Amino acid sequence: MPATLAELAVRFGLELRGDPEARVAGVATLAEAGPEHLSFFANAKYRRELAATRAGAVVLDAASLSACKVAALVAANPYAAYARIAAYLHPVPAAPAGVDVSARVAAGAVLGTGVSVGALAYVGPAVRLAERVVVGPGCVLDGDIAVGEGTRLVARVTLVGRVRLGARCLLHPGAVLGADGFGQARERDGWVKVPQLGGVLVGNDVEIGANTTIDRGAIGDTVLEDGVKLDNQIQIGHNVHIGTLTAIAGCVGISGSTSIGARCLIGGAAGIAGHLSIADDVTVLGLTMVSRSLPKSGIYSSGIPASEAAAWRKSVARLRRLDSLYDRLRALEARLGLQGEAGPAEDETD
Amino acid sequence: MPATLAELAVRFGLELRGDPEARVAGVATLAEAGPEHLSFFANAKYRRELAATRAGAVVLDAASLSACKVAALVAANPYAAYARIAAYLHPVPAAPAGVDVSARVAAGAVLGTGVSVGALAYVGPAVRLAERVVVGPGCVLDGDIAVGEGTRLVARVTLVGRVRLGARCLLHPGAVLGADGFGQARERDGWVKVPQLGGVLVGNDVEIGANTTIDRGAIGDTVLEDGVKLDNQIQIGHNVHIGTLTAIAGCVGISGSTSIGARCLIGGAAGIAGHLSIADDVTVLGLTMVSRSLPKSGIYSSGIPASEAAAWRKSVARLRRLDSLYDRLRALEARLGLQGEAGPAEDETD
Amino acid sequence: MPATLAELAVRFGLELRGDPEARVAGVATLAEAGPEHLSFFANAKYRRELAATRAGAVVLDAASLSACKVAALVAANPYAAYARIAAYLHPVPAAPAGVDVSARVAAGAVLGTGVSVGALAYVGPAVRLAERVVVGPGCVLDGDIAVGEGTRLVARVTLVGRVRLGARCLLHPGAVLGADGFGQARERDGWVKVPQLGGVLVGNDVEIGANTTIDRGAIGDTVLEDGVKLDNQIQIGHNVHIGTLTAIAGCVGISGSTSIGARCLIGGAAGIAGHLSIADDVTVLGLTMVSRSLPKSGIYSSGIPASEAAAWRKSVARLRRLDSLYDRLRALEARLGLQGEAGPAEDETD
Repeated sequence: MPATLAELAVRFGLELRGDPEARVAGVATLAEAGPEHLSFFANAKYRRELAATRAGAVVLDAASLSACKVAALVAANPYAAYARIAAYLHPVPAAPAGVDVSARVAAGAVLGTGVSVGALAYVGPAVRLAERVVVGPGCVLDGDIAVGEGTRLVARVTLVGRVRLGARCLLHPGAVLGADGFGQARERDGWVKVPQLGGVLVGNDVEIGANTTIDRGAIGDTVLEDGVKLDNQIQIGHNVHIGTLTAIAGCVGISGSTSIGARCLIGGAAGIAGHLSIADDVTVLGLTMVSRSLPKSGIYSSGIPASEAAAWRKSVARLRRLDSLYDRLRALEARLGLQGEAGPAEDETD
Repeated sequence: MPATLAELAVRFGLELRGDPEARVAGVATLAEAGPEHLSFFANAKYRRELAATRAGAVVLDAASLSACKVAALVAANPYAAYARIAAYLHPVPAAPAGVDVSARVAAGAVLGTGVSVGALAYVGPAVRLAERVVVGPGCVLDGDIAVGEGTRLVARVTLVGRVRLGARCLLHPGAVLGADGFGQARERDGWVKVPQLGGVLVGNDVEIGANTTIDRGAIGDTVLEDGVKLDNQIQIGHNVHIGTLTAIAGCVGISGSTSIGARCLIGGAAGIAGHLSIADDVTVLGLTMVSRSLPKSGIYSSGIPASEAAAWRKSVARLRRLDSLYDRLRALEARLGLQGEAGPAEDETD
Repeated sequence: MPATLAELAVRFGLELRGDPEARVAGVATLAEAGPEHLSFFANAKYRRELAATRAGAVVLDAASLSACKVAALVAANPYAAYARIAAYLHPVPAAPAGVDVSARVAAGAVLGTGVSVGALAYVGPAVRLAERVVVGPGCVLDGDIAVGEGTRLVARVTLVGRVRLGARCLLHPGAVLGADGFGQARERDGWVKVPQLGGVLVGNDVEIGANTTIDRGAIGDTVLEDGVKLDNQIQIGHNVHIGTLTAIAGCVGISGSTSIGARCLIGGAAGIAGHLSIADDVTVLGLTMVSRSLPKSGIYSSGIPASEAAAWRKSVARLRRLDSLYDRLRALEARLGLQGEAGPAEDETD
């Protein structure tokens, strides 16, 4: 779907430097783009590639314009502008409306206008699909389920129990919504399963990555507000609540009944314990353990960057022996008649 | 399924305080319950909600009775009592016996009385399903597989290779049992795959979470004993052995040939290395790395709670420089004629 | 498939000690093997089992021969030799060529000679399967997809978007290749999805574990070179590049645009940040956080082994107070007229 630079500038409200009649037919990285490609510059790491690019045009901010030798589309937010243009140049092919001959739609299911049900998908009797919902091949929708307008389940998504999905959501393959949360009551002789009776409530414009799991609530619902973005292989426990526009990177685990505020950014493989409350606008860096509530906006971390293994082993050994180091320091201070700032009681306070 | 408080007290052996003829029709949280709901109090965090609840009745222990202004059912173990009552008030609808018209059951498969095979499920030729087994929609059972009485595969569960499941197990969507373990032998020019020839042997009353994976053994079997409870997205390597009633939270990884005792509790996202032995009654807290055997019961940990990122970065920098701090301390001690308790050789011992 | 020891010695180029006419019919562990079994010894931990084994023969290296009281096949690399013999004694049954009656193969799909498509699998219209490809039950191949000779998708594998798989690959259940990477551009009012337009390019002889996810590239491709081996539940972000023969253990997460060299070994649950470059022949131990590029071959680590929780809590508290410890040490040094090796500025350097 080729376009002239003039057309892109007008459609996306950008300032153009270069030939308005020049055409681009698709996007490419700065390094790989040719004259038929649009590229973008939004990360200072790629300054060298910008200087050398052969792209037909580059989306960038005004400050970077001087470093660009080819045509440019100037945007306040080049990455977002690039995203919109790329979507325009590379539209997602529409799924054909209708039910594939190999799909199984149970009597009772309600399908809106333009719904697409792919090959070998199952739509149970208590499922309602709004207009233009896409249920890709191999999906299983088995429960009390409602899906909002234009939401797309790419393929092999599983919805069970009670699930409400808003409009324009995008769910990737292997995602599981509505499975039982992990509730077990210990008795002398074993475990008693705690019935998981709540649902999963997802707002509009939510994206859920491949093989991510979101458990149903134990009693109330597990809730994702509008605009939440989840990467792959994330685990969301029962009764978790995630505020609007919060984005979570891959491999994060969030235990039950924790509430996360709006506009948070959670880095990859972070682990968040249960029954906590995280404020709005909190950033948690990758591999961080959150075991207490975070009532204030800010950036939090507990990950330790890799060292050479031999040196690291030594650091760990010394870390375990910090006690004796404190004791020796205190002895020295006593010997010199100094008083350390902290006595043993305070030292041991966690 | 409404019930009077008198009926619940008798059926579950609880002491009742309040009107025996009052009825509850379902469960709700303390905060959201109305007079038609039963609720429970088992976590001191919710004391305020207990005082304010409008529930028809609350399950609690005798010590909490005075804090409750509504009817109460008194239990030694309120959470377990609640679990049993909730299951009674909200029974899981039985899956219809029989094979869905869209399922594929291969010739040779043996199905017991009352078995249910859901839409678009596949049951291979060497599969035996005992009485009342439920194979939910989209499941794939392809191998030498036997499933015990009343076990339920909710939806899209995959069993391959050789798998034995006991009675009354519950497997959630996306679980994969019996895939090859990760066995690769290094040669000069590449890897040689080590054939994975064992099976997966699962006892009775085991629950397995969504997208959890349990590999087949390399030679012998991977074993989960009776009553093991696994949350979502857990990875169990080949030839792991998990003792009875052990419960494991989400996102835990256990490498091959490790043996875990009975009644252990493993916190979320813990990582356990291979070829280890963990004793009975061990608790491992979340995000802990277990890289050596734990021969004694106890509580183990290595996670570091989140700090503000700037402060944490400083701590990490200092942690890496502990060596020099020890050296400086030793120099001071020498200057003062003191002898530190540990010389360099011992310090470096891991 | 029984074989004489003589036959095995000749076929695999091994030296035989023992009766050439003795037969073995399968493999077993040293502890469980009987006279009809072949076993192997490649890990010093099992020296006691070697001494006591009743195996028909043991594959081992020359140095271990004296500790073995039964017949032996001597190999320079006993584990690799064992792997080859086990594959010979236990051949994987061939999947029957042809398309199962319950599968759905769209018009336009191209199937080579001997291709097997299992029950309830979906093969889309733009899929090309080379000779002897096996698409197991429940797989979904929906996109612009090409699969090389002899590659096997065990069951319920999902390929979407644009995927190229080489020859002789093995993909385990629940694996998802080609889902969108996690690309979101932040604007004042929300997120703009960055179209994910690249593909997944996988070389020959690659193994991909259960529930592992490999995202398509944002613009260019995500690439796995020949001989890469991935365990279960690994997450590979968009535009990651993994060099030949690199092996990655379970639960690892690799963020977008990171490049990993050849012959690396990545331990379980390691987390690798985005836009990094890891050299060839790097080993990363389990649970390590890699947040900077590793330009040199070597062994890297940042995991902390578990301690008893009470002691660990104390170590963490002291770790957070290292600042004050450094200050106190400096005060002592000043008092004694000594100068510490590092002033505050350097101490704070990360």
